[in-house]
Amino acid sequence: MVNGIERPLDLLNQSKGKEILVQLKSGNQLVGTLLAFDIHINVVLDNAKEMQDGEMKRSIGLSFLRGDTIIFISPASVSTDKK
Amino acid sequence: MVNGIERPLDLLNQSKGKEILVQLKSGNQLVGTLLAFDIHINVVLDNAKEMQDGEMKRSIGLSFLRGDTIIFISPASVSTDKK
Amino acid sequence: MVNGIERPLDLLNQSKGKEILVQLKSGNQLVGTLLAFDIHINVVLDNAKEMQDGEMKRSIGLSFLRGDTIIFISPASVSTDKK
Amino acid sequence: MVNGIERPLDLLNQSKGKEILVQLKSGNQLVGTLLAFDIHINVVLDNAKEMQDGEMKRSIGLSFLRGDTIIFISPASVSTDKK
Amino acid sequence: MVNGIERPLDLLNQSKGKEILVQLKSGNQLVGTLLAFDIHINVVLDNAKEMQDGEMKRSIGLSFLRGDTIIFISPASVSTDKK
Amino acid sequence: MVNGIERPLDLLNQSKGKEILVQLKSGNQLVGTLLAFDIHINVVLDNAKEMQDGEMKRSIGLSFLRGDTIIFISPASVSTDKK
Amino acid sequence: MVNGIERPLDLLNQSKGKEILVQLKSGNQLVGTLLAFDIHINVVLDNAKEMQDGEMKRSIGLSFLRGDTIIFISPASVSTDKK
Repeated sequence: MVNGIERPLDLLNQSKGKEILVQLKSGNQLVGTLLAFDIHINVVLDNAKEMQDGEMKRSIGLSFLRGDTIIFISPASVSTDKK
Repeated sequence: MVNGIERPLDLLNQSKGKEILVQLKSGNQLVGTLLAFDIHINVVLDNAKEMQDGEMKRSIGLSFLRGDTIIFISPASVSTDKK
Repeated sequence: MVNGIERPLDLLNQSKGKEILVQLKSGNQLVGTLLAFDIHINVVLDNAKEMQDGEMKRSIGLSFLRGDTIIFISPASVSTDKK
Repeated sequence: MVNGIERPLDLLNQSKGKEILVQLKSGNQLVGTLLAFDIHINVVLDNAKEMQDGEMKRSIGLSFLRGDTIIFISPASVSTDKK
Repeated sequence: MVNGIERPLDLLNQSKGKEILVQLKSGNQLVGTLLAFDIHINVVLDNAKEMQDGEMKRSIGLSFLRGDTIIFISPASVSTDKK
Repeated sequence: MVNGIERPLDLLNQSKGKEILVQLKSGNQLVGTLLAFDIHINVVLDNAKEMQDGEMKRSIGLSFLRGDTIIFISPASVSTDKK
Repeated sequence: MVNGIERPLDLLNQSKGKEILVQLKSGNQLVGTLLAFDIHINVVLDNAKEMQDGEMKRSIGLSFLRGDTIIFISPASVSTDKK
């Protein structure tokens, strides 16, 4: 399951096309499908939703997110929540 | 719909001339037409409006916005709101 | 009106000699005539006035403003307010 | 026990595959198995759990964590807590 | 009066040996004679006084001030206040 | 006692293997034996203890501490407190 | 008295071996003898004392202080306070 992760960006690379949870420094979270990222951890999410305290606050669709606003990115926790 | 997005800046490039929503770290939002951007995510918006809690606070017209004040940029959510 | 803006700094270049509104991260605003700027968005304003909640707080005259304290710069909104 | 630590990153290198505690600037903590890190101290954790005031807040599984959100990383304190 | 200001640092260069007002991010202000500055906007002030809400808080004399603590520097406003 | 300190990092170099007190921006302190540091002032402490208001909050053992969370490092004050 | 100060770091160079006051962004102050500094304004102080609201909080002795925590450094104000 964790094969092939030698550098941190390998996890982001493996998560392209999958749903991810992004925890923001502001306290909010974004959930969406990872389309692209760069070395600044800027990411593009498709079908993004902004969450607050576990509830959907608003749908923001296709979005560009600045890397310096992120605490962590978790591809696994989205699927876990759905099961 | 998401064709052609290999790097995060591709989404901004595709959004030139379109209306975008910019979520600021200050909690406010700006809505306007994207005219230009650079690698620092500095952007120029035309017909920009400053929003707070979903209501228009003031019209600021043609404006230069520093990239380090931005959380996310969403081209899709503006059109979604209008439908 | 927006001709010639291919990069964000083009707007600042076009605004030299004109009155601009500068929104600061501190919540205050400065209004003044743009004399000069650099790639850090450091700017020099002439006849600058510090505004708070739409009222003039104090006149600070010819001033150097650090770029990392700025949220946005709006050349248009000053003239809009006057009409 | 502390053999082989000449530079700070040597400790992270020795901790690969082990459980670590990550203290975040936000006040929360993450506990998980260290899979990878880079010079920005970005880390990938497996089976990560978010802790607050010593209690598990939520399981976030395999996660990418930005280095600039970290205060300290402690491989030792996880095992100490378990004994 | 504003002749010779093509780049922001030109204003600081013209202000050497003159009294300036420095607005700090902390909310306080320093008033003193500008002796030296560098590209980080680090400055040396002579006869510096720390001001709070328009009143002198303490005299700190010859001082080195870090550039990243500054919002704006105003050579003009000091003389304006005195007239 | 202060012989051989020409550059700030010389003090850290002299403190290897000794107990140091690290004051964090968060307000907390860490006490531990300095094993390693780098030019970012990232440090590795052995037998580290987290202190708050002069009392031990928890033992975190061998730990990696990010340099950008530090206000000051004091090798002397640990021994002073013990005498 | 201010001879020889052409660049900001010249003041720090002249202050080696003298007592200085360091105003921190945290609101506290450090007073001590300047032993060394570098271009990041990291400094080493000997016989350092931490001050809060004009009173000594604790003696921290020989200490390394990170430059990014500093607002200003004042060699003059220490002697002024003593007179």
